Amino acid sequence: MLMSELSSRTGVPVATLKFYLREGLLAPGETLSRTRADYGEEHVHRVGVIRALTDTVGLSVQQTKGVLAVVDDPGDSLFDAFGRALGNLPPTVPEADDYPRARAVIETLGWVYDPRYVAVRQLESALAAAESLGVPLDADRLAAYAPHIRAIAEYDMAQIPTRPDAALEYAVLGTAGHEPVVAALRRLAHQDLAARAR
Amino acid sequence: MLMSELSSRTGVPVATLKFYLREGLLAPGETLSRTRADYGEEHVHRVGVIRALTDTVGLSVQQTKGVLAVVDDPGDSLFDAFGRALGNLPPTVPEADDYPRARAVIETLGWVYDPRYVAVRQLESALAAAESLGVPLDADRLAAYAPHIRAIAEYDMAQIPTRPDAALEYAVLGTAGHEPVVAALRRLAHQDLAARAR
Repeated sequence: MLMSELSSRTGVPVATLKFYLREGLLAPGETLSRTRADYGEEHVHRVGVIRALTDTVGLSVQQTKGVLAVVDDPGDSLFDAFGRALGNLPPTVPEADDYPRARAVIETLGWVYDPRYVAVRQLESALAAAESLGVPLDADRLAAYAPHIRAIAEYDMAQIPTRPDAALEYAVLGTAGHEPVVAALRRLAHQDLAARAR
Repeated sequence: MLMSELSSRTGVPVATLKFYLREGLLAPGETLSRTRADYGEEHVHRVGVIRALTDTVGLSVQQTKGVLAVVDDPGDSLFDAFGRALGNLPPTVPEADDYPRARAVIETLGWVYDPRYVAVRQLESALAAAESLGVPLDADRLAAYAPHIRAIAEYDMAQIPTRPDAALEYAVLGTAGHEPVVAALRRLAHQDLAARAR
């Protein structure tokens, strides 16, 4: 299809598609003439992913580029690629020399982790905030939460596609998409339990 | 204690404490003279809660007032009070006439809910976002997530203090404080599972 059709199929203006091409977010189509190129279904899909990341997740163009660069070239270690791709998702937490609270929690759980993974510093920041709110994550709460969070994560992992690029895309979109659902459902579970306790 | 001591105890400048008094976030101290009043431990605690809500949770002064007004005067129904207090927490989602996705999910689960509770529209917004990311919450995922989210919520509810004002304060601070911890732990559980599957 021509760019005009890619635009009508995706609902994204031609000028924006050209911007994605210039920024390297979208691969060039197959050249038909000096001014025309042919785009395929993979371009339609890619534009959908770009819009999902920018409009729905709220990533900047740079963060979106970061995610897509890993999707396009996962490198030798898919494990490292997951960490790099997911590292572009909010919340943004500044790097520090050490993440002592997060380290203690993850080591208590015996989970394998890469200390450079962004979720480590996100956990550190969340633990520090919980402390300053007067609701620290004590050992008892951690022991209560962890198996259930792990069970949710196990379900997630079982849904991951096998093709590496699809797996990375899915991990990013699934992480961004399901976190707010889990948070809202937890609040509603509280309400249900409060109603039944009346 | 005098206001100067309340300031040094809490680390909050006197001008800010006076602002809290004017805004009605902080109750007046016991009058000692025309310009001096006596503050107690309950004031120290309250200033800590105000700072936690504004600095750590990121609430506006208006939202903080909203939370504290409910804590101070829960009314006849503690259940409704929970809904009103927690409704001040982010994310802010505009009101709509109907929340069809959220209704369908909550009704599938058979949970008791107040359709006016802000978490209903937060769920609707999260479900719509997940759809547009291409990772909708299907029946299978909902069935997998729900019992674990509920188990986490059951633990939370068991920790709630019995005194109504303390219960409301705890519910707000605990909800705000533990959500980001759950999200970060889920990401780390994914990483652990990915590492073990290598």
